[in-house]
Amino acid sequence: MNKPASVVTIGNAIVDVLAHTDDRFLADNRLVKGSMNLIDADEAIALYAKMGPAIEISGGSAANTAAGIASLGVPAAYIGKVCDDQMGRVFRHDITAAGVTFRSEPIIGEPPTARSFILITPDAQRTMNTYLGACVLLSTEDIDEPLITAAEVTYMEGYLWDRPSAQEAYRHAAQVAHAAGRKVSLTLSDTFCVERHRDSFAELVAGHVDILFANEDEAKALYQTDSLDDTLAHARADCEIAAITRSEKGAIILNATSTYEIAAEHVEDLVDTTGAGDLFAAGFLAGFVEDRHLADCGRMGAVAAAEVISHIGARPEEDLKQLIDGRFQKPQKPSISA
Amino acid sequence: MNKPASVVTIGNAIVDVLAHTDDRFLADNRLVKGSMNLIDADEAIALYAKMGPAIEISGGSAANTAAGIASLGVPAAYIGKVCDDQMGRVFRHDITAAGVTFRSEPIIGEPPTARSFILITPDAQRTMNTYLGACVLLSTEDIDEPLITAAEVTYMEGYLWDRPSAQEAYRHAAQVAHAAGRKVSLTLSDTFCVERHRDSFAELVAGHVDILFANEDEAKALYQTDSLDDTLAHARADCEIAAITRSEKGAIILNATSTYEIAAEHVEDLVDTTGAGDLFAAGFLAGFVEDRHLADCGRMGAVAAAEVISHIGARPEEDLKQLIDGRFQKPQKPSISA
Repeated sequence: MNKPASVVTIGNAIVDVLAHTDDRFLADNRLVKGSMNLIDADEAIALYAKMGPAIEISGGSAANTAAGIASLGVPAAYIGKVCDDQMGRVFRHDITAAGVTFRSEPIIGEPPTARSFILITPDAQRTMNTYLGACVLLSTEDIDEPLITAAEVTYMEGYLWDRPSAQEAYRHAAQVAHAAGRKVSLTLSDTFCVERHRDSFAELVAGHVDILFANEDEAKALYQTDSLDDTLAHARADCEIAAITRSEKGAIILNATSTYEIAAEHVEDLVDTTGAGDLFAAGFLAGFVEDRHLADCGRMGAVAAAEVISHIGARPEEDLKQLIDGRFQKPQKPSISA
Repeated sequence: MNKPASVVTIGNAIVDVLAHTDDRFLADNRLVKGSMNLIDADEAIALYAKMGPAIEISGGSAANTAAGIASLGVPAAYIGKVCDDQMGRVFRHDITAAGVTFRSEPIIGEPPTARSFILITPDAQRTMNTYLGACVLLSTEDIDEPLITAAEVTYMEGYLWDRPSAQEAYRHAAQVAHAAGRKVSLTLSDTFCVERHRDSFAELVAGHVDILFANEDEAKALYQTDSLDDTLAHARADCEIAAITRSEKGAIILNATSTYEIAAEHVEDLVDTTGAGDLFAAGFLAGFVEDRHLADCGRMGAVAAAEVISHIGARPEEDLKQLIDGRFQKPQKPSISA
């Protein structure tokens, strides 16, 4: 490990298996477009057998975020569980090569490294079908306390909430971070995930989350409201900072006193929306730990998200730091009470 | 197996590991741009550790050709050796999902499925570093005689020539094909490969190959001449048909009596030249078994090659049949003595 990480992200360590498909395939397999479905080993085998030729790219929501933060020149670390199989070695290579510190111990033997079968329709939407494999073994033992204590922000994905042992790991990480006076950040990840765990998510967000990320649908699902204004009011009451993303409508960033509307970046050629939220969080958090103005954090998120949806795969291909430096003058004002 | 394959291709079954890089990385690692280098297991580990984040896509020259032929609506089969590991299962899935018959038995245990570390420079050139792994165990036992006997063309890649047991398998396949009155086709694959095996390649081409594919440099290396005219004269003397590809200059197709110059297709955005030759052969052979005019076979090759260099990866993303049908009327003439 070189510089201590400014941001540690924790999540399901997943290799994405991406294939192009059409709406009929989704309908035939009763898949809801845009959702993330959990599947078991048998379902994974059956779905894979029906899918077209695919490509494999390291993914995992919070891992994508860590790769984005590193690409922005901010030291990042990742905690997640892979198996010591070929896919696990691919995952380890890619996140390490992206400049992210990754020292989680792999599982030896079974279950295999997680994979998400991502079906991309011609409208660039992705429908995810995730076999969690080795991820289910993430536990408090994997929470690297020195890493978290040293980092300004510990960021976690809502997807972790699907496994009890990961929930425990999650709460433990939040405790360690807060005990060290650090910030805890969460993304709600997915509307269905919110609905599976609404009550405990609500408690978590209100009690432990300083910086909340959610898209508009996820946030509305959490607060059980159709009103964007109500949603923002709830988020403001619950968290120090909230970033609500709204696809082509941009994002809304708020804290106790201020609200910023951030326009979406223009995207020439929308190819694959996988990773849009992950990279928005990356841009935002990189700006945050550089003490940039909240609105600029939001803009950095928008630029990073636009890059990742312009190509296949959920990790940046371009050097995001160059991309951002081309847009923004460097440093700024203190951000919290902007 | 459904329809008997019209074309069987035989080659090294490889998963490509693609990463963007720059000229300096090639220089630092003493890699010759555009070449294919064979590396051993230790070199594979060392190179992978130095490479940036990558994506995994099924590849293998002759396998790409089979996928292209199937995408053109022509029944195709593939013979190649994988291990029964995760990468081998990925390879099997992808080629099967592409519509290619693939019934070669996998190796159980070691060595692992082959991989080629492909470094893509900003000029879209690819430099390949191949660890052959399970491919080295391809032998005459893998030559599926009923498949070859039934197919109009058996196509093999020159890369196979790097292993003695594969050479033997190769000669056996050629014998089986010819005994059944079928055509044998070869691609020279790579200039360095030609130089490694010039004498035995020369003997093979003159004695056993009906349809030769080579790019200009490979063909010149085979015939040890700097003159394109000499090269064409040699090829005409050796083979019934030769297709000499010339990158942006298009291709030259010849038989005993005729020579056709084929223009390259316009490519809007050159992304990754991997697979250009493989897909040229696919387009050409699909046309050939459909009894199209030789010049049209060449044009089909050019269209298929243009598609594959417009995106990352060496297998078609678009439906090539639609692409070709959009350009050509179905027509036909007998092709051989055009």
